[in-house]
Amino acid sequence: MAVVRYDPFEGGLGFSLATRVGDFVYTSGMVGIDPSFNVPEDPAEEFRLVFANLAEILEAVGSSLDQVVESTNFFAGDVGSLYPVFEAVRKDVFNGALPASTSVVVSQLLDPRFHVEVKLVATVPSSE
Amino acid sequence: MAVVRYDPFEGGLGFSLATRVGDFVYTSGMVGIDPSFNVPEDPAEEFRLVFANLAEILEAVGSSLDQVVESTNFFAGDVGSLYPVFEAVRKDVFNGALPASTSVVVSQLLDPRFHVEVKLVATVPSSE
Amino acid sequence: MAVVRYDPFEGGLGFSLATRVGDFVYTSGMVGIDPSFNVPEDPAEEFRLVFANLAEILEAVGSSLDQVVESTNFFAGDVGSLYPVFEAVRKDVFNGALPASTSVVVSQLLDPRFHVEVKLVATVPSSE
Repeated sequence: MAVVRYDPFEGGLGFSLATRVGDFVYTSGMVGIDPSFNVPEDPAEEFRLVFANLAEILEAVGSSLDQVVESTNFFAGDVGSLYPVFEAVRKDVFNGALPASTSVVVSQLLDPRFHVEVKLVATVPSSE
Repeated sequence: MAVVRYDPFEGGLGFSLATRVGDFVYTSGMVGIDPSFNVPEDPAEEFRLVFANLAEILEAVGSSLDQVVESTNFFAGDVGSLYPVFEAVRKDVFNGALPASTSVVVSQLLDPRFHVEVKLVATVPSSE
Repeated sequence: MAVVRYDPFEGGLGFSLATRVGDFVYTSGMVGIDPSFNVPEDPAEEFRLVFANLAEILEAVGSSLDQVVESTNFFAGDVGSLYPVFEAVRKDVFNGALPASTSVVVSQLLDPRFHVEVKLVATVPSSE
């Protein structure tokens, strides 16, 4: 099947932010960074920004957060304090349309300012 | 496509144990915990429980272990001693219907009692 | 759907190198090892070998590097020096057909000689 690539940086990142193939969408691992490349100090704000970024990316390829089928969450730092915050944000963000999920703690993300990197698999609405 | 969510905890976990979309099934990362929330001390027993839990979850959404296409295995602890035990259990469990597989050692799983967390992608039988 | 398994080791690894189901292909996590089980000392050579191995595996199941939709990259070691090398190799390898990508640093890969393990999801060309 044809692969649609969402790459607003036009090769600058070395990967696409998302790809779509048939009814499936795959996002890159996304972090809590704003358009000015700032990272919120408050983890709750950081996590909200992760999902806001992902929501925009999903929209760009015809999907949305309520069409997510799987979320893999790579944490860095003190997960004992981070995970409850993440859970609260996620509950709010997905609003009942809960994906399958895997959460693990890695040694390091590429940039030490981030506490989580989230990659999603999603589908597109049936009407598409 | 419509997303079917298998969430017997009705939102309590903050994620679904599995989702199904079209012919594909995605499980959450599963660990070796029994219905009373106990974790076997013997890693072989723990690993058998991981796959027994996954088998139940796959069945609940119309799939099964012999329809698994990919397994990602996140280990925690001494993988030199754990991996041979995992391999033996897996060989027995998949009984020749071997999925693609990725195994890495992470810093930590969410609960320190676990030695592995396994997430699967599967398909449903053609007859479905 | 029927699962096609690419397992040239006939069960010896305990997993298939790739599976194909419908139009989708899933590879196992692949490393930079040659047919004599040697690992190049130069990370750039190691990374080229990772993708050369993946290209062969994709071909064996009817896909190719330009049909990759997602790449998950598990690094081990000093990612500050490794990632720029990986980026340069990847840019060359994918030649504009950039997949979605997630890169994290784990504690350990199964064999300490490796600096990265890469797993791919791909599709098959429309003509298939």
